[in-house]
Amino acid sequence: MKNEILKQLANRKSVRVFEDREIPKEDKAAIITAAAMAPTAGNQQLYTILDVTDQELKDRLADLCDHQPFIAKANLVLAFCADCKKWYDAFAAAGCSPRRPGAGDLLLAVDDALIAAQNAVTAAESLGIGSCYIGDVMENCEQMRDLLQLPRYVFPAALLVFGYPTEQQKSRKKPQRIDEAYLVHENTYHTMSDQELSDMLSFHAGEKDYDAWIQAFCNRKYHSDFSREMSRSVGVYLRDFLDGAEESRDE
Amino acid sequence: MKNEILKQLANRKSVRVFEDREIPKEDKAAIITAAAMAPTAGNQQLYTILDVTDQELKDRLADLCDHQPFIAKANLVLAFCADCKKWYDAFAAAGCSPRRPGAGDLLLAVDDALIAAQNAVTAAESLGIGSCYIGDVMENCEQMRDLLQLPRYVFPAALLVFGYPTEQQKSRKKPQRIDEAYLVHENTYHTMSDQELSDMLSFHAGEKDYDAWIQAFCNRKYHSDFSREMSRSVGVYLRDFLDGAEESRDE
Repeated sequence: MKNEILKQLANRKSVRVFEDREIPKEDKAAIITAAAMAPTAGNQQLYTILDVTDQELKDRLADLCDHQPFIAKANLVLAFCADCKKWYDAFAAAGCSPRRPGAGDLLLAVDDALIAAQNAVTAAESLGIGSCYIGDVMENCEQMRDLLQLPRYVFPAALLVFGYPTEQQKSRKKPQRIDEAYLVHENTYHTMSDQELSDMLSFHAGEKDYDAWIQAFCNRKYHSDFSREMSRSVGVYLRDFLDGAEESRDE
Repeated sequence: MKNEILKQLANRKSVRVFEDREIPKEDKAAIITAAAMAPTAGNQQLYTILDVTDQELKDRLADLCDHQPFIAKANLVLAFCADCKKWYDAFAAAGCSPRRPGAGDLLLAVDDALIAAQNAVTAAESLGIGSCYIGDVMENCEQMRDLLQLPRYVFPAALLVFGYPTEQQKSRKKPQRIDEAYLVHENTYHTMSDQELSDMLSFHAGEKDYDAWIQAFCNRKYHSDFSREMSRSVGVYLRDFLDGAEESRDE
C-alpha cells in the first residue's frame, strides 16, 4: 500500500462489540465535520444527521433495527437521513411554489447521505474508533417515523454506530471480498453465467457444499422476515415521492 | 486537525478540469481496491462497477449526463451500479426460487454502491487524484440502459470521474457548508421554521438578496429540466422493484 489512507481503507472492518469507553467530544466533532465536508450534489447537503444520545431512544432503535442489542450499547449513534424536506420548505417559504420531491430527488439525497456517512466511518477509523452500518433502519417505517419524528420527505438511509473495538473485534479477520474481476466490468454490464456466479461466490461456502451454502444463505438473508420487511417499509417511504411528484405544493 | 486523513477529508473538493495526464495503472488499481474493501451489507457487495474506458462511450455518457463535456475528458470514469441482479441470479441458479428484488433491496444496494464510491474518492485524493460525482447518471433511463447494457435490477446510482486537477482547480476555494447546528439534530428530526431555513441558507446568497438568490437557485436546480428528468427516470427504474416484489421468480 502506497500510503496510510489506503492501508486504513483496506483494513477497516465492522465493529459490533465495543469497549465501555466514551468517545471524546473533539473526536465526535471531527467525525461529524468529516461527514459535513463530504462531496454533495450542488453543495446542497441533501441529508440531516440525527445524533441519537438518549438511551431510551437507542434501546427502541436497537429493537426496531432487527433486534440488535449492540446498537443500544454504542457510544455514538448517527442516523443519516436523506432529506428532501429542508430545501422544499425553504423554496416554499421564499415563494418558489416548488414541485413536490420526486424519486430522483430522493435517490440523489440517499447518495449524499451515504457519501457523508462513509466519510464519518473513515474519520472514525483514523481515530481508532470502530463503526458498523445498520441498514435495518430502513425497516418498520411507521414506528421509525414515530420514534425519530421523521416527517414526509425524510428517509432514514443508514444508521451508523461507533465505539472502541474490543481486543476480540480488533483481531477478527476481515471477511474476504469477491474477486475484483467479477466486481468491475469494462465499459458495459456483463450478465454472468450460472458458472461465473458460482465461481464468484464459492469462496463464501468454504468447506461446505456450494449449493447447500447458498440455499441456507438465501433463507437466512434474502428470504428473511427482516429483508421482506425492509422492502415493504421502503415501499411506504417511496409512496410520497411517486405520487404527484410533478404537482406544485398546494397546501 | 488531528491527523492527515481528517485533513484530506476536510479539504477534498470536486475537480471538473483535469490535466492531460494518465492515472498510473497501480493507482487505478488502488482506487478500485479501496472501493471493493468498503463496508458492505452482509458482505454481499451489492454493486457492480463499470470501468468506462471506451472513448465513444465516454462521449455518449457525457451527453446523457446533462451535457457535461468534462466527463468525456476524464482519465478514469467509474459507474457505481446498485446490483440486485447478481445474487438474484445466483439464488435462482442454485434452485432457491428467489423472490423478486424489492424496494428495500434496491436501497440497500444503493447504500452499498455509494459507500464503495466514497472510498474510491478518498483513495484517489490520497494519491493526488481529483474526482467528481455525477448524479446525472440517473437520468435518461432508457438510453442509459441501452448504452451501458444495464439489465433489469441494475441501477446506475452514481458516476465518478477522476483525473489530476489543474492548478486553477487546486487553488479554487472549497464551497462553504451549512452550519453544523442545522445539519445535526439531537435525537429526533427537527422541522425548521422559515426563519431557521433562511438563516441556514443565507450565506449561499452572499451579497445578493436572499429571496432573489433562492428563487434563482430553485429555477436553476430544482425546477430544471435535468432535475425533473431525474425523477422521471428513477421512477422508471423503480417500477421493476415495486411490482410484484413478493412473488417468486416464475420465468
